[in-house]
Amino acid sequence: MGIEAVAMIYSEHGDPLKVLRPVKFSVPEPEAGQVVVQLLAAPINPSDLLQIDGTYPLRPPKTKEFDPETPSAVGGIEGVFKVVKLGSNVSSCNEGDWVIPQKGSSTWRSHAVFDAEELLVIPESLRSGLKPLQAATVSVNPTTADLMFDQYTTMNTGDWFIQNGGNSGLGRTAIQLAHLRGIKSINVIRNRSDKDEIAKQLTDLGGDIVITENELQEESFPEILKQKTGGVLPKLALDCVGGKTTASLANSLANGGHFITYGSMTGENVQIPPWLLVFKDIHVHGFWLTSWAAKTGGRGDLILKLLDYIRQGKLKDVPFTIHEYAVDSKSPEAFADAFRDAIDADNKRKGKQAVVLV
Amino acid sequence: MGIEAVAMIYSEHGDPLKVLRPVKFSVPEPEAGQVVVQLLAAPINPSDLLQIDGTYPLRPPKTKEFDPETPSAVGGIEGVFKVVKLGSNVSSCNEGDWVIPQKGSSTWRSHAVFDAEELLVIPESLRSGLKPLQAATVSVNPTTADLMFDQYTTMNTGDWFIQNGGNSGLGRTAIQLAHLRGIKSINVIRNRSDKDEIAKQLTDLGGDIVITENELQEESFPEILKQKTGGVLPKLALDCVGGKTTASLANSLANGGHFITYGSMTGENVQIPPWLLVFKDIHVHGFWLTSWAAKTGGRGDLILKLLDYIRQGKLKDVPFTIHEYAVDSKSPEAFADAFRDAIDADNKRKGKQAVVLV
Repeated sequence: MGIEAVAMIYSEHGDPLKVLRPVKFSVPEPEAGQVVVQLLAAPINPSDLLQIDGTYPLRPPKTKEFDPETPSAVGGIEGVFKVVKLGSNVSSCNEGDWVIPQKGSSTWRSHAVFDAEELLVIPESLRSGLKPLQAATVSVNPTTADLMFDQYTTMNTGDWFIQNGGNSGLGRTAIQLAHLRGIKSINVIRNRSDKDEIAKQLTDLGGDIVITENELQEESFPEILKQKTGGVLPKLALDCVGGKTTASLANSLANGGHFITYGSMTGENVQIPPWLLVFKDIHVHGFWLTSWAAKTGGRGDLILKLLDYIRQGKLKDVPFTIHEYAVDSKSPEAFADAFRDAIDADNKRKGKQAVVLV
Repeated sequence: MGIEAVAMIYSEHGDPLKVLRPVKFSVPEPEAGQVVVQLLAAPINPSDLLQIDGTYPLRPPKTKEFDPETPSAVGGIEGVFKVVKLGSNVSSCNEGDWVIPQKGSSTWRSHAVFDAEELLVIPESLRSGLKPLQAATVSVNPTTADLMFDQYTTMNTGDWFIQNGGNSGLGRTAIQLAHLRGIKSINVIRNRSDKDEIAKQLTDLGGDIVITENELQEESFPEILKQKTGGVLPKLALDCVGGKTTASLANSLANGGHFITYGSMTGENVQIPPWLLVFKDIHVHGFWLTSWAAKTGGRGDLILKLLDYIRQGKLKDVPFTIHEYAVDSKSPEAFADAFRDAIDADNKRKGKQAVVLV
């Protein structure tokens, strides 16, 4: 009899709050090369919810491991675990190590058995300065933000980029990672009454210019921008919003600039004025970390670099609302409640949510 | 006193029918390295009208050569001329040669003085099988169509591309140039009652599939397309329409496909669903021949290849309405009327128009 564990699983795709259900299961003994791990923290990312509702093109295989009646999958793509038991022939990690599943899937469970070779082990030298939530949230958003600066154009010191969703978790991370590289940022945020307060937060993180969507859409914006940047226009635009304001975002780019969509808060089409494509040689692309990782074979070094930035205080936390679960509880309902509260708040756009085991 | 000549000039940007006016001028004697040429034929291209109305980012310099009171420019980007007089030190062409101005500007005049080195000379071996209008219209649309197959993806025998404006001059040329390369085409045309007639014309040119915009916008279109193509989706989309149907055009692309805009009949934004960018790795670009030529240094060899296709009957003419001007007339008004009729018909979308000197 293995460890008693709980997981948030789903058998059908649909509204995560409706299709996700908790199960108790018994963690099998680790085979050779495997380890048993225990969850420390996991975020609720937009991609988690898209995967459960069926929009996301990658779906974890459904198995009868958790419910012998119905093939099911475990929710969640990102998280950090602690190694609690080693199978034979495991030399890459030790009990107590913090590990990040590199194939990044099915993290919403109190325990799991993983092949040791698919785990990124966080070295003790890094771990001492880290909180579990920091390690749990480094492998999707910060890696995405950092990688986008190198995908289609070379960003050099003094170059500018523009992004919408400037106040999002990824937006705040992109500001800081750019600042560390000497890249300057123009950060578009939603029209809001507390613009000055948000602008101060973003400039405190190293952001250079903060504007609202309304300001972005002024016809004179590219000229105003040139005045603010000393005549330089951004080489790169990062979009996670979609919809009509994307035309203005693209219109602020320098000739030959690149526009990258990595998500869509509105789900609406990206809109690009045709003459920007023809006469200004603007290029539009998407970025998907999963596809990048499949092509390049991994992001372990990048994650360790980013964890080191976090440990050193160079990369500051983005705000998270934490939902706690007592790690010694064997109640599937308590586990489920932590996730349900987090998902519910995320659906209502109450900022970034995470479940942390305490 | 040189040759008496006429030109269609403009001093201000605006509606071409309003700002263009004819002038008489005296052709100066050619200097060393220069030649005097006489117009044989010139088309009315959308870019000509955009240049005159001020939308086009490249504008010919305005000089007082034609009107001593007001700086003016000559309309027209494309055309073919015959050499009628050589200055000293010209060895690259002879009297009687047909030449295409490589810097492509200011063609709407009965005569011009050009530097011999900026002229592409059509070899006698090609010229014998050509009509002036064919030579006058080879350097913009056919070159653009041919180049787009190589800009962002490598199109191989058996690959598919999809284009809107399938019945346009460029669309018809692209069908044929693709067919010569063994590339298959899906051609989107406007919803129209004579669809079957147009479809027959396009398949006679080598087109594989012809569909209307309505058919393109059916949600099931990508699946239907797969059935028609044996499971293969296009690698390349060519867009000259813009607007909402561009989302469907992009949605028919294979993973990793490229979408190129080279014009915009609607002037509306290109619309790309965000998930096509993120999950299907679709890339969106523009193509502008002027920019391409500036980067690569010329398209002379390509033009000669295409003229040879035309001479051999491999590349069939697209339909043009011809407006004639008597070459021995010295009436600016008669010259202007030929162009005004052509521009007026073009503005009313009555198909492609050209002025031919007879």
